[in-house]
Amino acid sequence: MNATIYRSAINIASICGLYLAAAMLVPAVTDLYFRHADWEVFAVSAAIVGSLSLISAAATRSGPPPFNRKMGFLLVNVLWLVFSLVGAVPFMLSSLKLDFAKALFESVSAITTTGSTVIVGLDHAPPGILIWRSLLHWLGGIGIVALGLFVMPYLRVGGISFFKMESSDTNDKPFARIASFTRAFVLVYALITIACMLSYTALGMSRFDAINHAMATVATGGFSSHDASFGYFNSEPLLWASTFFMTICSLPFSGLIVFMVRGRLDALRDPQIGLFLAYLTAFSIAIAVYHRLQNDVPFHTALAHSFFMVASILSTTGFVSEDYTLWGPFVVSMAFFLTFMGGCSGSTAGGIKAYRFIILFNTIRTGLYKLIYPDGIHAIRYGKMTVSADLQRSVVLFFTTYLALWAIGSLAMTVMGYDVLTSISAVITALSNVGPGIGPVVGPVENFSTISSPALYLLSLMMLLGRLEVLTLLVVLTPHFWRS
Amino acid sequence: MNATIYRSAINIASICGLYLAAAMLVPAVTDLYFRHADWEVFAVSAAIVGSLSLISAAATRSGPPPFNRKMGFLLVNVLWLVFSLVGAVPFMLSSLKLDFAKALFESVSAITTTGSTVIVGLDHAPPGILIWRSLLHWLGGIGIVALGLFVMPYLRVGGISFFKMESSDTNDKPFARIASFTRAFVLVYALITIACMLSYTALGMSRFDAINHAMATVATGGFSSHDASFGYFNSEPLLWASTFFMTICSLPFSGLIVFMVRGRLDALRDPQIGLFLAYLTAFSIAIAVYHRLQNDVPFHTALAHSFFMVASILSTTGFVSEDYTLWGPFVVSMAFFLTFMGGCSGSTAGGIKAYRFIILFNTIRTGLYKLIYPDGIHAIRYGKMTVSADLQRSVVLFFTTYLALWAIGSLAMTVMGYDVLTSISAVITALSNVGPGIGPVVGPVENFSTISSPALYLLSLMMLLGRLEVLTLLVVLTPHFWRS
Repeated sequence: MNATIYRSAINIASICGLYLAAAMLVPAVTDLYFRHADWEVFAVSAAIVGSLSLISAAATRSGPPPFNRKMGFLLVNVLWLVFSLVGAVPFMLSSLKLDFAKALFESVSAITTTGSTVIVGLDHAPPGILIWRSLLHWLGGIGIVALGLFVMPYLRVGGISFFKMESSDTNDKPFARIASFTRAFVLVYALITIACMLSYTALGMSRFDAINHAMATVATGGFSSHDASFGYFNSEPLLWASTFFMTICSLPFSGLIVFMVRGRLDALRDPQIGLFLAYLTAFSIAIAVYHRLQNDVPFHTALAHSFFMVASILSTTGFVSEDYTLWGPFVVSMAFFLTFMGGCSGSTAGGIKAYRFIILFNTIRTGLYKLIYPDGIHAIRYGKMTVSADLQRSVVLFFTTYLALWAIGSLAMTVMGYDVLTSISAVITALSNVGPGIGPVVGPVENFSTISSPALYLLSLMMLLGRLEVLTLLVVLTPHFWRS
Repeated sequence: MNATIYRSAINIASICGLYLAAAMLVPAVTDLYFRHADWEVFAVSAAIVGSLSLISAAATRSGPPPFNRKMGFLLVNVLWLVFSLVGAVPFMLSSLKLDFAKALFESVSAITTTGSTVIVGLDHAPPGILIWRSLLHWLGGIGIVALGLFVMPYLRVGGISFFKMESSDTNDKPFARIASFTRAFVLVYALITIACMLSYTALGMSRFDAINHAMATVATGGFSSHDASFGYFNSEPLLWASTFFMTICSLPFSGLIVFMVRGRLDALRDPQIGLFLAYLTAFSIAIAVYHRLQNDVPFHTALAHSFFMVASILSTTGFVSEDYTLWGPFVVSMAFFLTFMGGCSGSTAGGIKAYRFIILFNTIRTGLYKLIYPDGIHAIRYGKMTVSADLQRSVVLFFTTYLALWAIGSLAMTVMGYDVLTSISAVITALSNVGPGIGPVVGPVENFSTISSPALYLLSLMMLLGRLEVLTLLVVLTPHFWRS
């Protein structure tokens, strides 16, 4: 039984490896177009990964895969691990010559749509490598939305969107519905990417920069083709455009799809969207006012940069327009705490996410009420829905585990010699898949190139934990999981 | 109905004010003994507070107080507020001439057994003031244990000790039982204080220092009669003695009493004691090894200081033997995270507390198990007891509220201009009633004398919130509470 599961999981992962090998032709063609010698790197990588995947897929070929919860957990972890390893190959072989720890970190950061980088000199990096990073972001974004829509609710780990859809739609032909929904999703995702790219070119980006930044925006990833990130372009309209697309892509895609395909605005009537947009606006305005008062910049400039900064962190994208940690201590601590928060469930954003905050806040409110009137009956609500005991428990489980991992990871970083601020900030920016941290080492205008290999492995693990909603990966690490 | 409650609460608080006025005779006599002119300050304070309390008590005299949950919540808050205000009077009138914000902060820090100080030059401070600080610690310690034993469980806010006693003892004559238990508690508390004082004198402290430090130790407060705290004495045996007493006083007093009065060792068989002692030992040894390796000190010295440091923070006492933030980044981050943890429920220690960690950890473990086998039935256990849904909810409520207050308080501190590390550390050390923080402003060898008045008010509020298990104070701040 267990053997069948492992076999099937490796088989599916191998087939996905084949697809990734095929995807390497995109950067290969890019390098050929720009006449960069690294096209050979991608051709060789594609050949290696493709043939290994083919052998592995053939060796593990079997009947239709069994599907149960164990298989689900195992498969998700194996897939993200394989993506990370395969994604790292071109980074090691390219003219950048990253060592394994750095290549893996860059690949994990790409696939998990985190956007922390170890590469210095992006402005002169091989174009194929830049496209490869963006493409991994983009595919990682598709992966996480699909996971959130179809797999996570089944595993009861996270995601509130899908079971809402279930309750409103009729429940016949689930697989046909999943297939049509997937097609609609990829279409919508691609359309938003194209719209984003066209906006960026219209506002002055070169086509190459626009393609890269559009893929990184829609995936809420954050990789840039310039060391200075959005600071390179020095354009407030570009900041607003990016703010708009980062915000859109932090909303639940299920709602976006229904809205865009069927034109139903009520598909966006979800409490987490309201809360997310409310705190995004409130925090941005607060920071803009503070920035205006402290640093005497024009208010429209303060507003453009603060909205961009808050949208970038909350959407867990991680683009940077300038060193906001110089605006004042309030902004530094906002940057730190915003890194925990994240976007909406069902999007490409990471972090704790708005719907969990709604449930936690209502838990607190109901709890205080219950202390005054202990015999009253007080259901915890999410919008008009009563939150089930199961969902409550999963939110609490996620929240406590998330913070525990943050604390443990931070302590581990300090054992490796990093100062407290760097440690607590690097670990949370990895866990929340944001990208930049605060402080002198991993601050917004720094990168992760000076981080030691052990710390890069730790942070890679944190990025994967965060991306897989923590529990999916932790479950596989418990002894219970491996008992048959 | 509500009017009766307010009247009664003020009446009881006024009577307690009378007791505090009487307690001011202790520092008055101390100053007389040392021939310090400040004895008049305490005589005048006693006269003012005494007469005001008398008038207020007479004006609000009524029949036997009603007792319900609202009254309970209101009374606890009013009592701690009155103690804080009355305690502040001598600080304002004395030759130290503290302004209101500083005097209130010092008084709240004393009553809540936090131990952060705004006074510079303790070595030459009036002896009466030093005794007053220690006495407020000591009385605050009695107050919080009584609250935890008798009031909190009734209000369902916190405390696991009392309802355990209820289930094992017979339930007749609860008031007689409370009275005899209170006598036993004050006796045990006084005995431990005397034992601590004798140990300190035997190991070289002057009698005056020993009295002050013994009261501050047993209340897990942390005020010292020297700016350098325990660093002044430069004695490893003294560090070990203090470590022993700080540890003892972080254990549940209900267990200590049964053990000391009836000699039953099984009264100490409580899972939170096991966990608390386990992590105290583990963290101390880890830090000692790290300190030894990083700084080349003799291992016995590293051990003495690390046990003292960990016991001091976990017990939320806050004594300091030297600047441990110089030992290395791992120790700085340990100091930061230990500040959240706290001691056992039913003691004078603050923080999140060990029993909550047990319940949270078992919630995580059960939750992960449930993800693999969703149909299994998995109770959350505390030792051999099944944790009720009520208790689970109260732990989660406390944990989330605690962290939310920490984040909000930290942001408020940064708005006032403090750097991130100072802000996040000052707020948590206040909320957990520990005392010292980390960083250049509120680090272990610094004090709070440079903190601005608005920030002192904020931190005073945080100390009171933490001391009253957060929820007790928050309940009173909800609109629901004030509806009749």
